[in-house]
Amino acid sequence: MIATVAGGVGAARFLRGLIEVVPADEVVAIVNTGDDTVLHGLHISPDLDTVLYTLAGVINPETGWGLANETWRVMEALGALGGITWFNLGDRDLATHCYRTQRLSEGATLSAVTNELTRSFGVAVRLLPVSDDPLRTRVQLAEGPEVGFQEYFVRLRHGVAVASVRFEGASSARPAPEVMDALRSADSIVVCPSNPVVSIGPVVAVPGLLDELERRRDRVIGISPIIAGAALKGPADRLLVEMGFESSVVGVARWYARWMGTLVVDEADAALAAAVEAEGVRCVVCPTVMSSVERSAALARTVLDAVG
Amino acid sequence: MIATVAGGVGAARFLRGLIEVVPADEVVAIVNTGDDTVLHGLHISPDLDTVLYTLAGVINPETGWGLANETWRVMEALGALGGITWFNLGDRDLATHCYRTQRLSEGATLSAVTNELTRSFGVAVRLLPVSDDPLRTRVQLAEGPEVGFQEYFVRLRHGVAVASVRFEGASSARPAPEVMDALRSADSIVVCPSNPVVSIGPVVAVPGLLDELERRRDRVIGISPIIAGAALKGPADRLLVEMGFESSVVGVARWYARWMGTLVVDEADAALAAAVEAEGVRCVVCPTVMSSVERSAALARTVLDAVG
Repeated sequence: MIATVAGGVGAARFLRGLIEVVPADEVVAIVNTGDDTVLHGLHISPDLDTVLYTLAGVINPETGWGLANETWRVMEALGALGGITWFNLGDRDLATHCYRTQRLSEGATLSAVTNELTRSFGVAVRLLPVSDDPLRTRVQLAEGPEVGFQEYFVRLRHGVAVASVRFEGASSARPAPEVMDALRSADSIVVCPSNPVVSIGPVVAVPGLLDELERRRDRVIGISPIIAGAALKGPADRLLVEMGFESSVVGVARWYARWMGTLVVDEADAALAAAVEAEGVRCVVCPTVMSSVERSAALARTVLDAVG
Repeated sequence: MIATVAGGVGAARFLRGLIEVVPADEVVAIVNTGDDTVLHGLHISPDLDTVLYTLAGVINPETGWGLANETWRVMEALGALGGITWFNLGDRDLATHCYRTQRLSEGATLSAVTNELTRSFGVAVRLLPVSDDPLRTRVQLAEGPEVGFQEYFVRLRHGVAVASVRFEGASSARPAPEVMDALRSADSIVVCPSNPVVSIGPVVAVPGLLDELERRRDRVIGISPIIAGAALKGPADRLLVEMGFESSVVGVARWYARWMGTLVVDEADAALAAAVEAEGVRCVVCPTVMSSVERSAALARTVLDAVG
């Protein structure tokens, strides 16, 4: 069994390739819920949904989030009412949020609802929210207030300086059922090429996970989301620098060194392999840009080979 | 100023006619919120919305609820996920519920949100939820559990026997701002042809309203929702009988006698006028079936003339 630690788009693409290489029902994805938000009364789990939709083959391939062939009737009408539309929710995507919110209001856990959704979407990968307890990434802007993650990420288009990040609720959050078991028993633990600060950060902030990852450091392998100094998408590069790290594969290695035995970096960073290893992290160099399912699968194969 | 006490479809049709006869901004509608429910996390106010959409001219004329030219993308997708779809919510209608829920979550009162929505929809009638506090009609089935009003009305299609009805929250609900002022200062108070038990019942269950209506009994005029022994729509006839009243204009008069000076009944019930007056309620006979805006307006004219 392969356990993975996942954020949104980058993780989803990696997982899509991974299930070309190993049976989907042998893959567990422990997914960030720090991005979750409640808007219009609806519980939205962006990372879980991005992974779910991608693995179900229904993701919008252009945006990397939301559903393909989506319509926007609700948002259009909401805009006409002066409602909040910066967080764009398609009509069929809204059905997912309605379903989740109703089931949560009936007392179901986020894990249980996620399991129901994966079945409905025909996804065999076991998607586990890292915790069923509230966990919310809060972003303290360098010049401005503390805002919720989606306000930073979507409304402000992550184009503003960040002073600090915290994960509200993390200290009292318990790992969701199966999360710890998955980390304990997995043959390998793959940290997807997600944002180290705000996608993987909330996951390892849940008490218990970091200790287990440290214990299994030899089996933990990550893929750098930074290629040639920059993030392909999103603010991983800026945030690493704002947190006092380099925006490079060396910065990523340093960020993860305590609990990650191996880091996979792109060929563009081959020259930095020695510097990565100087951080105490074994370095594997290969193509990491996942521009197709085939490339994602090739990357997954390299990752699995690297941890034997 | 004309104050009206309103439920859903029947009230909406009457109000649509009334604003042909008096300026819309001289009309206040005190609207039932006992039908309100939270589903999918969304706060739904069916009676407020039916009145709003009707007055805005965007109601679905065939169903009497929801919006004309509606689409159903969200519900279709929700059905595919195994979600709750018996309470059918169109895409643009959902935007109203999203707007309301978000504003309530921000701390706005239901009155304030309703006011915002009436502006957005260009409606000049002052729509007042009877209370900003929670008020929920609960229906004890004769054979079965107690259910929420929408379960009774929509899911069970009001086709089951009812043992009793109660209005949860009523005893501690406070009248919304302007409600008591409207009742005190109105030239006339019109009780729309809504269900006496479950549409008007929750309104007068809010402490303070019944006393004020009693005080102003001479200026209170109702329109019977029962014509020739039956409700045109909905379970008013069944419920009156289940509450121990006749399903007739006489039963309606008896139900309202304590605080209603005049009852308008349909020509089909002309023979019962004396029996209505024997209940101590003045009886006015005229056509009451509102099959067009013109007929609604004619009814409104008769009603206003009757209370001078």
